[in-house]
Amino acid sequence: MSNIIVQKYGGTSVANVERIEAVADKVKACRDLGNSIVVVVSAMSGETNRIVKMAKQIDPNPTPRELDVAMATGEQVTIALLTIALEARGVSARSYTGSQLKMLTDSSHNKARILNIDAKKVEEDLESGKVIVVAGFQGVDEQGNITTLGRGGSDTSAVAIAAALKADECQIYTDVDGVYTTDPRVVPTARRMDRITFEEMLEMASLGSKVLQIRAVEFAGKYSVPLRVLSSFEDGDGTLITFEDEEMEDVIISGIAFQRDEAKLTVRGVPDTPGVASKILLAISDRNIEVDMIVQNIANDGTTDFTFTVHRNDYEQALNALQQVGEELTAREVVGDEKIAKLSLVGVGMRSHAGIASKMFEVLAQEGVNIQMISTSEIKISVIIDEKYLELAVRALHDAFELEQDK
Amino acid sequence: MSNIIVQKYGGTSVANVERIEAVADKVKACRDLGNSIVVVVSAMSGETNRIVKMAKQIDPNPTPRELDVAMATGEQVTIALLTIALEARGVSARSYTGSQLKMLTDSSHNKARILNIDAKKVEEDLESGKVIVVAGFQGVDEQGNITTLGRGGSDTSAVAIAAALKADECQIYTDVDGVYTTDPRVVPTARRMDRITFEEMLEMASLGSKVLQIRAVEFAGKYSVPLRVLSSFEDGDGTLITFEDEEMEDVIISGIAFQRDEAKLTVRGVPDTPGVASKILLAISDRNIEVDMIVQNIANDGTTDFTFTVHRNDYEQALNALQQVGEELTAREVVGDEKIAKLSLVGVGMRSHAGIASKMFEVLAQEGVNIQMISTSEIKISVIIDEKYLELAVRALHDAFELEQDK
Repeated sequence: MSNIIVQKYGGTSVANVERIEAVADKVKACRDLGNSIVVVVSAMSGETNRIVKMAKQIDPNPTPRELDVAMATGEQVTIALLTIALEARGVSARSYTGSQLKMLTDSSHNKARILNIDAKKVEEDLESGKVIVVAGFQGVDEQGNITTLGRGGSDTSAVAIAAALKADECQIYTDVDGVYTTDPRVVPTARRMDRITFEEMLEMASLGSKVLQIRAVEFAGKYSVPLRVLSSFEDGDGTLITFEDEEMEDVIISGIAFQRDEAKLTVRGVPDTPGVASKILLAISDRNIEVDMIVQNIANDGTTDFTFTVHRNDYEQALNALQQVGEELTAREVVGDEKIAKLSLVGVGMRSHAGIASKMFEVLAQEGVNIQMISTSEIKISVIIDEKYLELAVRALHDAFELEQDK
Repeated sequence: MSNIIVQKYGGTSVANVERIEAVADKVKACRDLGNSIVVVVSAMSGETNRIVKMAKQIDPNPTPRELDVAMATGEQVTIALLTIALEARGVSARSYTGSQLKMLTDSSHNKARILNIDAKKVEEDLESGKVIVVAGFQGVDEQGNITTLGRGGSDTSAVAIAAALKADECQIYTDVDGVYTTDPRVVPTARRMDRITFEEMLEMASLGSKVLQIRAVEFAGKYSVPLRVLSSFEDGDGTLITFEDEEMEDVIISGIAFQRDEAKLTVRGVPDTPGVASKILLAISDRNIEVDMIVQNIANDGTTDFTFTVHRNDYEQALNALQQVGEELTAREVVGDEKIAKLSLVGVGMRSHAGIASKMFEVLAQEGVNIQMISTSEIKISVIIDEKYLELAVRALHDAFELEQDK
């Protein structure tokens, strides 16, 4: 039995005829090594925007069902062109739209969720030696309506197909060559990781290392699909996202993620009674504002302080909401700060190493960086600091934990 | 029961967002009169060529199945945009791709033939008051592969849908406002006909009045679908293509069609024995040359003359082929002429009017036009003349038969 590899190429990787031909060369090379290959592609970059622009010219809020009908054509063109390029290279290939694949989704147009994939026909084609080329981002509901999965949905399509086929690996080709210990623009010695766990990747992704769609990572973890992030433009092994193994336990910290565009809000001196936290958060969520970190410390004199962070764009609105609810709750005061940044150490190894947090805080103290909030999970320690110290703090921690060295 | 109208808009009628909005206005106006409407649309003009060009850049002979997958996206974008424009005008509407309509075709990619249409879902939607917007030019085969009907196939799609729905009328919107008695560029007094029969339209279409696809007219005749040709850009009743009725029998000649790019070839003095004609034509068809008119007169001294016409581009090749077969058949000589034109009078009324041919020949003689070949059918008289007399002959006949007058 040959290995089944699912490869996903995004919009910039298939941006024009020349790039599509380069992808065909890459796919052929992988097939010539004896692998069975399913390729999932996005629309040529710019194409989806061009179509959406025409639709919005007609109606700023176009009918969601029809927007999906229009948008789905972007990937349909790419699958045909790539299949033609493969056949021109003597590689037997066949394209599948979301409908033809029976990529069954719910009926939430523009943001559908995958329910099931009927992999039988694809499996037959693979056994007959064909390369399968699938339109990402799109599916079909029970009634035969065309649906799309929302921006970045092609990653999810690829993982779902890999899960249905029990593929040996799902390779996501992008414009970066892997996942780094932190942003190389901030820390020049940042190192590409060979491996990272699903949990770590989720923490890294949600914190701004936007290499992969979070949904795709969750999906891959749930269905045990090994994911690999690679560059479409350079050769290299990329980063494998997989389950924890013995080798990886030795690595304590995998990377440092950070987020610049947050703001924090604090309600001071509210009664320490049940229901207070939910009343505060309800005032926020009623305004469709998403909350990121939430910290509440123990009570003092029967009152407590409640702090959370939101996206900086939502700061003013959240502050207004808090001032109203603060009065109702007889809070002492409501304060906020827009000039903050969040920084997180991520690593599965930290579970068994109690000293990580103290070392982190010590490094920050040595650099004169004051910690305004702390929040921890099993595999992550996050702190809120003044945004002006962010780069300094990231570099100091990257050095202190020797992340530039491959361990 | 409201009338069911199928409207078809070609590529220039939906060339951009503004034109699509104008089509939406036209559709809404027709629906507001109480009609049930199915709209069939082509790709925005230029779109199919753009896609084919990319495919041919990759492979001059792209896989036919994949070319269909790519080309079908053109109409898919149009149906979505038009449906969005209708809904923006408060008209409840729903788009259908060829697959969603179950427009079943054979598997001849790039030139598929329609086998069946499952109209049930469309009928339900029409009954619920929706306008149905269908992608022309495309279908699906038994295996679920996307097929296309070949250039101009959208006319055929519209007629097929009209037949399946037993529509009251199938309206083909184009850039001309109807079918004329002859080409208005040659005869300024040429008149738009209110009605023409299917048979006349077939003769007119095949002779160069390229308003409608021949296949669509044949289809409409076979399934008794009244066809109407109208302008998308101007108001007007266009031309209704329908069955012969009493009123129409009074009209003897409907129109004058002509063709400039023909050439004639003659084999003189071949033995008048069975099998000679087929041997001559086989030599031509073996070279994939299509033959138009064929004329053979009675024998004389045991030999006969055999003449036929081909497209002017095929003249040299046909002449070579004839010279070879002429020797085998001991023909006296092989001659040809590239400087000819074909001119035809068309009209169902001529069946019962023996005098038409003699009047036609007399008019031509008065103008000094020599007739080189004559061929007739039930509703058509065609002559081959020197091409330099073509415009003169068309004008003289148009006057003589008073075609500028509505009878």
